[in-house]
Amino acid sequence: METAVNLKKRVYLFGGGKNEGNSRMKPLLGGKGANLAEMASLGIPVPPGFTVTTEVCNEYQEFGKDTVVRALTLEVTNGVQHMEKLLGAEFGSVKNPLLISVRSGARDSMPGMMNTVLNIGLNEETVWGLAEKANNEWFAWDSYRRFIQMYGDVVMRVNTYLNLDEDPFETIMDEIKEKSGAKSDQELSLEDLQLVVSRFKEMIEHATGQEFPDDPWTQLWNGIMAVFESWNIPRAVFYRKLNDIPDEWGTAVNVQAMVFGNLGNNSCSGVAFTRNAATGEAVFNGEYLVNAQGEDVVAGTRTPLQITTKGSKNWAVFAGLTEDERKKSYPSLEEYMPEVFGQLNENQKILEDHFRDMQDLEFTIQEGKLWMLQTRNGKRTGEAMVKIAMDMLDEGLIDENTALMRLDAKKLDELLHPVFDVEAIKKAKNIAKGLPASPGAATGQLVFFSDEAEQWKDAGKKVILLRVETSADDLKGMDAAEGILTARGGMTSHAAVVARGMGKCCVSGVGSLRISYKKKEVIIDGNTYKEGDWISLNGSTGEVFEGKIDTVLPKLNSDFGRLMKLADDHAQLKVRTNADTPDSARIAREFGARGIGLCRTEHMFFAKERITPMREMIMAETTEEREAALLKLLPMQRSDFEGIFEAMQDLPVTIRLLDPPLHEFIPNDREAMAKISEDLGIPIEKIENRSHQLHEVNPMLGHRGCRLGNTYPEITRMQARAIIEAALNLKEKGIRAMPEIMVPLTGTKTEMEFQEQIVRDEVESIFKERKLRLDYKVGTMIEVPRAALTADRIAESAEFFSFGTNDLTQMTYGYSRDDAGKFLPVYLEQGILSVNPFETIDELGVGKLIKMAVELGRKTRPGMKIGLCGEQGGDPRSVNFLHSARLDYVSCSPFRVPIARLSAAQAAIRELMLSRAN
Amino acid sequence: METAVNLKKRVYLFGGGKNEGNSRMKPLLGGKGANLAEMASLGIPVPPGFTVTTEVCNEYQEFGKDTVVRALTLEVTNGVQHMEKLLGAEFGSVKNPLLISVRSGARDSMPGMMNTVLNIGLNEETVWGLAEKANNEWFAWDSYRRFIQMYGDVVMRVNTYLNLDEDPFETIMDEIKEKSGAKSDQELSLEDLQLVVSRFKEMIEHATGQEFPDDPWTQLWNGIMAVFESWNIPRAVFYRKLNDIPDEWGTAVNVQAMVFGNLGNNSCSGVAFTRNAATGEAVFNGEYLVNAQGEDVVAGTRTPLQITTKGSKNWAVFAGLTEDERKKSYPSLEEYMPEVFGQLNENQKILEDHFRDMQDLEFTIQEGKLWMLQTRNGKRTGEAMVKIAMDMLDEGLIDENTALMRLDAKKLDELLHPVFDVEAIKKAKNIAKGLPASPGAATGQLVFFSDEAEQWKDAGKKVILLRVETSADDLKGMDAAEGILTARGGMTSHAAVVARGMGKCCVSGVGSLRISYKKKEVIIDGNTYKEGDWISLNGSTGEVFEGKIDTVLPKLNSDFGRLMKLADDHAQLKVRTNADTPDSARIAREFGARGIGLCRTEHMFFAKERITPMREMIMAETTEEREAALLKLLPMQRSDFEGIFEAMQDLPVTIRLLDPPLHEFIPNDREAMAKISEDLGIPIEKIENRSHQLHEVNPMLGHRGCRLGNTYPEITRMQARAIIEAALNLKEKGIRAMPEIMVPLTGTKTEMEFQEQIVRDEVESIFKERKLRLDYKVGTMIEVPRAALTADRIAESAEFFSFGTNDLTQMTYGYSRDDAGKFLPVYLEQGILSVNPFETIDELGVGKLIKMAVELGRKTRPGMKIGLCGEQGGDPRSVNFLHSARLDYVSCSPFRVPIARLSAAQAAIRELMLSRAN
Repeated sequence: METAVNLKKRVYLFGGGKNEGNSRMKPLLGGKGANLAEMASLGIPVPPGFTVTTEVCNEYQEFGKDTVVRALTLEVTNGVQHMEKLLGAEFGSVKNPLLISVRSGARDSMPGMMNTVLNIGLNEETVWGLAEKANNEWFAWDSYRRFIQMYGDVVMRVNTYLNLDEDPFETIMDEIKEKSGAKSDQELSLEDLQLVVSRFKEMIEHATGQEFPDDPWTQLWNGIMAVFESWNIPRAVFYRKLNDIPDEWGTAVNVQAMVFGNLGNNSCSGVAFTRNAATGEAVFNGEYLVNAQGEDVVAGTRTPLQITTKGSKNWAVFAGLTEDERKKSYPSLEEYMPEVFGQLNENQKILEDHFRDMQDLEFTIQEGKLWMLQTRNGKRTGEAMVKIAMDMLDEGLIDENTALMRLDAKKLDELLHPVFDVEAIKKAKNIAKGLPASPGAATGQLVFFSDEAEQWKDAGKKVILLRVETSADDLKGMDAAEGILTARGGMTSHAAVVARGMGKCCVSGVGSLRISYKKKEVIIDGNTYKEGDWISLNGSTGEVFEGKIDTVLPKLNSDFGRLMKLADDHAQLKVRTNADTPDSARIAREFGARGIGLCRTEHMFFAKERITPMREMIMAETTEEREAALLKLLPMQRSDFEGIFEAMQDLPVTIRLLDPPLHEFIPNDREAMAKISEDLGIPIEKIENRSHQLHEVNPMLGHRGCRLGNTYPEITRMQARAIIEAALNLKEKGIRAMPEIMVPLTGTKTEMEFQEQIVRDEVESIFKERKLRLDYKVGTMIEVPRAALTADRIAESAEFFSFGTNDLTQMTYGYSRDDAGKFLPVYLEQGILSVNPFETIDELGVGKLIKMAVELGRKTRPGMKIGLCGEQGGDPRSVNFLHSARLDYVSCSPFRVPIARLSAAQAAIRELMLSRAN
Repeated sequence: METAVNLKKRVYLFGGGKNEGNSRMKPLLGGKGANLAEMASLGIPVPPGFTVTTEVCNEYQEFGKDTVVRALTLEVTNGVQHMEKLLGAEFGSVKNPLLISVRSGARDSMPGMMNTVLNIGLNEETVWGLAEKANNEWFAWDSYRRFIQMYGDVVMRVNTYLNLDEDPFETIMDEIKEKSGAKSDQELSLEDLQLVVSRFKEMIEHATGQEFPDDPWTQLWNGIMAVFESWNIPRAVFYRKLNDIPDEWGTAVNVQAMVFGNLGNNSCSGVAFTRNAATGEAVFNGEYLVNAQGEDVVAGTRTPLQITTKGSKNWAVFAGLTEDERKKSYPSLEEYMPEVFGQLNENQKILEDHFRDMQDLEFTIQEGKLWMLQTRNGKRTGEAMVKIAMDMLDEGLIDENTALMRLDAKKLDELLHPVFDVEAIKKAKNIAKGLPASPGAATGQLVFFSDEAEQWKDAGKKVILLRVETSADDLKGMDAAEGILTARGGMTSHAAVVARGMGKCCVSGVGSLRISYKKKEVIIDGNTYKEGDWISLNGSTGEVFEGKIDTVLPKLNSDFGRLMKLADDHAQLKVRTNADTPDSARIAREFGARGIGLCRTEHMFFAKERITPMREMIMAETTEEREAALLKLLPMQRSDFEGIFEAMQDLPVTIRLLDPPLHEFIPNDREAMAKISEDLGIPIEKIENRSHQLHEVNPMLGHRGCRLGNTYPEITRMQARAIIEAALNLKEKGIRAMPEIMVPLTGTKTEMEFQEQIVRDEVESIFKERKLRLDYKVGTMIEVPRAALTADRIAESAEFFSFGTNDLTQMTYGYSRDDAGKFLPVYLEQGILSVNPFETIDELGVGKLIKMAVELGRKTRPGMKIGLCGEQGGDPRSVNFLHSARLDYVSCSPFRVPIARLSAAQAAIRELMLSRAN
């Protein structure tokens, strides 16, 4: 290490015309660092500084602090000199101190996940320098106490020593405020602040056993290391897992000269979006706070003002005010500082045009001078994502491939989220209004704590998480909740940003909420709502309603339709749906499904009037009795199939023969058995016996799938008859059905041949009876590893394959989905598994079987149609793999069809781009 | 067909110097046909005839009778002329009629499975010609009535029309015997026989609606077709399944001139073996009956005499007679017809020398002239198999490869069968004596019917099947029984032959048994034994004992030891054993095991003093509590391992870490839980809760294997410690232990890495504590399909692989062994599966994974040691495959070690022979 260490460039300068990085260097400089360099190169006013690379983060994790500090010393010193020169200030100087911020900056933004330290360089001496420079002693000491608080928390990690329920800094602040009679931080006197500073330092030293460092360089080095250290704090690790960010990417550290938005009423801090992040509307928008530092805007402790009044104004907080009143109390930045706003507006145009994507900007105005602190591609809702992409495509800013590749397919889900039922919402009681922080409708039971949200969800309940404001500690609870409601915070608050990222409904900044965590209740307008009470949120309007409100599906707009058409133009993989009823078949068809890839027949048997003949069939002691019971089921199945075929007219419908073990149709408890005994007129002992006989130790590996059809061929015969008779009935009405009969759980060629023969014999006899024929196919699921391994042989009989990756994953890993809850979460947490193979196809194992089966199957039957109908069919990463494995189609639940269509297009484009790159 | 049909040779003549076939043509001519031709070529007196090829059998199955008859007409006509010419008789002639037999003859002998028709050519006219020729009207009419009975049964299949409990022919015979006062068939008068004939014919016509054919050619054609038809009767199909004979081999038909052993006291029929089929002793031996046809000897309806008094004479029927008495009542053929015996003895020598294997001969002496009817390699016991092979090797008759390849590895099992405990047998009450028909000791409960034997066995009971005599219908029952006891029949009776084939203990011909099928009881010497009573058999002495007698392992003789050494010289695959205790390790080592391939640790935990700390461990709520409980288990495990390492000194011992799900250690019923609650001092509710929590829907795919070790690393740590401390303790005593620590159920590389790290960390700390080191390996089971698919990655961590083909088969097929009983038997019966993949490795699927894993594993880690420790490790076919898959070793239960060693040698020789052939 020692010698190699210094050969590598670890620090990249930016600002003042000396810009060593650019926006293409995100893997090395992180998103923020790369963009700061790029921004500076564009002539945008950026406070100067430098970026320590992400590689150093990995070096830190591997070799530790000392080695890294040694490796960085020269370059960091040089970087500080770069800042000193440009700002004419000196780091550690008492007269004209340079203050420095240290911020994390990963390749992909991880908002609020890692640590930041501001105002590095302050100590008992330099604080007076700052006071003089700013002509404001109060500000200087307030900055100093903020710095100690932040440094004590983030770098010295006081809380890990103390393990208190209350924040020790807040405790001290509260004590001194009480003593001095101050109602807010602002009312504290200079002496109070000085007392705070000394009390803070005492507390830190007492807790950690370490003196608070006065040396600016010690502060700086520790600050940089603390950012690297924060890459592995639990909330950051969890966030990465949630967002599939590899651990080895690491974070860069951005060290930058401080500018101040809190030097009086001529200073402010703000955040802005070049387009509307919620709707996608092409209007510059954002929020700002006068006399405040950046974190005040983001933290949501004060509700910020808008930078402009143009564009969508659906925030309810303005309701009821006249325009003059509004202008006076809530002026926009455009109104408050028109000239600076003009510069800001100019800069945002330059940046969006340059990056060709919607930008999320941070800025500070220090005594009238605008500094741009950050630009990055803005997070957005699914709706905004689609609109911005299609708008930019229309504007000629990007091409089709870019428009499609830029979309996060999973986020389309948001557009498909339910909204409130129109009639139900009419009767609903609106109890509060807040900011429409993340769109969609949600209804659930109130909970007040993140861990309880998780527990209630695990217990099968729908919850709304209610918090004063959220923090990174609430991530899991937010993930578990249907919707999030907060009392404080704006559109860029933690709650809002994270909820939009999750595609989850959120209403924020509802000031009328009086929350008692202790009593687990909230008072709204004098009414008390307790834990467990039902409440509903409209994340698109900011409205809060009492009680449970039914939701319905959203109508999709024309951008969505155009996008989907565009996707289909690029995709090779077709998308079908898994649907068992005419209704879901119709919905899926509206979402663009090109047929049914999996129609499960067993669900049909659970309906009230069917379960009785089904049970008769199971209780039958002879083939004849079984056939008699099946004869009762025949017309019901036939009419189901007619409905489904009709909904999918002219498109293929793959129907799977009976799959689950028969014991699933016989309840276990004596009471239910007594009922069956009565229904069927069979002594309860017989039912108990049969139930006992059907019991299995490992039902997943038991008597099910084609093992049923081969031991009770009459079941297969009945189902084949129902399918073909239904198709013929429609044919007589001029409706074209395209049935594909699918054998489940095939493991050997002979199993398939037996089933095929039973089906074909029955179908031929129907054709003879009816004197009418039609085309149909007989194929099989590939869901048993052996079927994949011997697919060449099975293809001798099967006309098509459909991968059942739920079962295939279970058997390939030996994981029972019913039982994996006992170890899978631990495995994911410890990184033994990087993804859940039931959500995303395991390419190394299950994927290998899939590729093998495709190759073997088509060796026997060239051009054979091959699809997939497991849960992973709607997962973008899996779709990408399945495209490369040369499947013909994937089949997923109706609501995931659009996601799969987009993912299929992206897979095709990705492949094209790769082939061009090679 | 029409034209192609006649281009092929379908009939091969033999006898009288015109021998078109030879012994290498068994696939085409069947074993019997090929050997008849070969015998005739050697100058042995064989009744002339011809063989219809096995190909015609397949043509018959495919195209039916008419086509086949057309194709054969010319050649069969020619064949009959060949016989007529050589015997100077004429088929259908009234004066000098040629009579013909039609017999099946498959490639491998299937004794008694298919049909035979004798005396074809007899009718109301030719019967008088036979009478004149034999100068014996009674004999001619008795032959005629036998012919009608056989033809009516086999060709016209009267029984399938009548569906009676009683044989209709026997009913008529009994009626007429009663009427005429005859006590046996022999006492019937000529008129009686003539009445029998006409009653038989009436009955057949009435039952079948068809006239009994008088035309000899019709009789002949139908006879030939009936043999082809009998290829597919259920007992033949079952026999093929039992013996792995492919359906498509088909049977040949041997059409041969009749010779008669029942032309008076100068005639006889017999069977003989060139060496002793039970012991292997090199002494010509056999049985004969004076004035009898061949089937009388085989059917066991009369107890036959010995052809010589030389050699082993352990048949108890001679006990108590003086030599003179014996000679008078039971003369040997050598004594009775010394000259003819001399010819027979000459022939047997020629034949054994020629075929270089022990021969099973059939002969008939017609009025003093010897005819050899058949020769084939004789069935033999395992003991005889070994002795004959080693003797012939010593005699220089065969080479090592031939000696080894000739052995049926599965039959070695017989040599390893238990024998009666010496002390127990001293006290046992000997209640009867019969023929030592098939060696070994057996103890079980009496049952009287084949189907009941199956049912009792299915219910987990051990049974002895007791029958007057057995028939092909008893096959399944014999298979289910521990031993077989019959009242009638000799050493070549159905019961004896089949039992030896099955390697099953059998005592036959115990005349003192008085059996009542109706009452399900047997009276022996006035004592009544009922169904369910315990009885014991010594198949090596013919003794029958009252009650249950403990059995012990046999001592192996020197031939066996030499054979095993010879096998090891040729084998490449090593054989280890699966053993969990020092005792079984020692037994296996005596059987030649070269180490332990699988030591399961879980069985150790079930011992009385261990289950309590084990349960404490499971009930623990914290890691600390768990570790405390594990600390109690540590010394116990360590001492187990010391014992096993000591027994396997200088040989590798593969120890598998804890594998089964924890719920296996917690009983389900409340009573047992209450006991645990008391033992552990934990409230029963907690135990119930934990049990509920541990419950799994599919435990086979649940929280087990390394999933335990990765979620509770302290378990792995304790086991690693126990293993290594045990090995170090022995090292200090100068005993070399070679531990191999095996991780179960690995599915991903990371799982293996985690386990490896836990083990290595713990072991390193032990080495430091003890200041002593030793070599050890850390490897993994390959039993999850994904492990095989990603074996290249897993081999980065694992130092060795061991295929767990029980689990691997379960997951590759998706068959739960616990539940497969619901469909596997049906699958085997219907031919959906040709073998049970849990007994013999499925080469197409599971085998493909094995080959893949071997290749991938050694790509990462060249020369990696790879073994197998599933049930199939002792299965000869599987061993052959595993040799070809280049495994280093197989591991099987101690008693199967010799089988695996021989199989390994055979696999190597087979490969060598194939490589020479190519």
